[in-house]
Amino acid sequence: MSKLVIVGTVAFDAIETPFGKTDKILGGAGTFIGLAASQFNVDSSVVSIVGGVFPQKYLDMLSDRNIDVSGIEIVKDGKTFFWSGLYHNDMNSRDTLATELNVLADFEPVVPETYRDAKIVMLGNLHPLTQLSVLEQMHDTPDLVVLDTMNFWMDSALEDLHNVIKKVDVITINDEEARQLTGEYSLVVAAKKIHEMGPKYVVIKKGEHGALLFNEDNVFYAPALPLKEVFDPTGAGDTFAGGFVGYLAKSNNLSFENMKNAVIYGSTLASFCVEKFGTERMINLSSKEVYQRLQQFKNLTQFDIELS
Amino acid sequence: MSKLVIVGTVAFDAIETPFGKTDKILGGAGTFIGLAASQFNVDSSVVSIVGGVFPQKYLDMLSDRNIDVSGIEIVKDGKTFFWSGLYHNDMNSRDTLATELNVLADFEPVVPETYRDAKIVMLGNLHPLTQLSVLEQMHDTPDLVVLDTMNFWMDSALEDLHNVIKKVDVITINDEEARQLTGEYSLVVAAKKIHEMGPKYVVIKKGEHGALLFNEDNVFYAPALPLKEVFDPTGAGDTFAGGFVGYLAKSNNLSFENMKNAVIYGSTLASFCVEKFGTERMINLSSKEVYQRLQQFKNLTQFDIELS
Repeated sequence: MSKLVIVGTVAFDAIETPFGKTDKILGGAGTFIGLAASQFNVDSSVVSIVGGVFPQKYLDMLSDRNIDVSGIEIVKDGKTFFWSGLYHNDMNSRDTLATELNVLADFEPVVPETYRDAKIVMLGNLHPLTQLSVLEQMHDTPDLVVLDTMNFWMDSALEDLHNVIKKVDVITINDEEARQLTGEYSLVVAAKKIHEMGPKYVVIKKGEHGALLFNEDNVFYAPALPLKEVFDPTGAGDTFAGGFVGYLAKSNNLSFENMKNAVIYGSTLASFCVEKFGTERMINLSSKEVYQRLQQFKNLTQFDIELS
Repeated sequence: MSKLVIVGTVAFDAIETPFGKTDKILGGAGTFIGLAASQFNVDSSVVSIVGGVFPQKYLDMLSDRNIDVSGIEIVKDGKTFFWSGLYHNDMNSRDTLATELNVLADFEPVVPETYRDAKIVMLGNLHPLTQLSVLEQMHDTPDLVVLDTMNFWMDSALEDLHNVIKKVDVITINDEEARQLTGEYSLVVAAKKIHEMGPKYVVIKKGEHGALLFNEDNVFYAPALPLKEVFDPTGAGDTFAGGFVGYLAKSNNLSFENMKNAVIYGSTLASFCVEKFGTERMINLSSKEVYQRLQQFKNLTQFDIELS
């Protein structure tokens, strides 16, 4: 079991989908990553920032799951980061209705002293310089640094993004973003170009079409579980990343073969996340349910062709 | 080993892709299905129609692969069906530049007498009434009838299409067509609706995103092999179907578990088809290459999570 540091937003989201809409509910990359990783009972710390009236019950809920919250700065006079989005009928595209950075505008993450020796670091989607400052606080080089990012930083802070990409072991990115970052349509070629930027491992997320894991020589494809309906896709990518790092932190094995398993755990947890609004499903998720869905993933993907 | 009847076009294609263009080359659903199925050395018959100057060398090439061509009618004064298409940069969309039905306009398929007891029938994409007439010529109810179709028949002959769908065991269809046929966006729900139309098994082809196999209770997901480039997608869906029925004809096992293997063989053969223009790659494909690519498919999809 390795200690895990997670940096990412803890936020409020207001979400509208074809199935309904919510008021401000708990969200944020740090929240989703932390909740997913907590399924593995790892010792993790979420580094983030919230406003003064952020409900203590949410912090307690995280603490109850063995997530250290001492790295979540509370800004008395500040307001918590807020995002609002509207999903279209196909659930693959969305409009951002509001983005209020609030306290996030001045976020300077501070990794708690007791977690600066963590072996695994998950850099959730944030400004690349914010991600970089977390890395610089670590005492030794971690065994594994995983970076999540998005097209927004490619448009607005590409040089900084390249500087942090250079320093990480794994990048998780969606298919369109991989194409934007590399100028290559083929995801195989895009992954190769991203390897040349630094990361030994590239995870390309394709939403309902699953996820690809590449290293220089190998590729692994984890499908998404085909679902009757996707209720709310918010947080699915972060949940995937949280399941990925959580499993690796627990199993202490960074081989490509074990990363395949980590991708399957990430996909499994993400398949729950989209069943309800926001974090609701992840907060009420039993290990028995996870076990059963892993069995579904095996049935979905495993076949029996003997090659001698 | 079961005898296999295939009905489908034997045609000329002229293809333009970002990688180049061809003059009239050998194509057609019946050709691609037959070539793929011939990888399993099954006893198959392609039922089709061609014009008078159709090169004998192509018929010989099929015969050399244990494909009976006595059901390919040669119309002395007629011209062979011709299709021309232009693929866009993403290779997922194409424009049809020309469709000359020629002899296909009056095609009345005649299944050779010695194949009317075949246990497996593959109905390649054609007018639903043409597909139906093949079924009506079979002496007994075949063990397995597989239907391929496309959106064109949904637009122009929906009632006839429903009449043939009712009579088949497996339908292969792409994702957009499954949505059009059922009015459902979710492929899980679409598959359920198609089950209610008749077929016990539904295969939904998602191009570069792989293929899904459904029965009423189970689902299996075979990814497409991630490729550096797709040179020419023409015939990939037919090759998939040919691999699927060819494997089933050879293995004589119609269980869902064995259909998973059939889907993997179909995906494997389709991954070769797109590497060159038209049938070129399929004509020059060794069993050793197929074996090696199956190993790649295992590495791509198989993982090792123990569930006790």
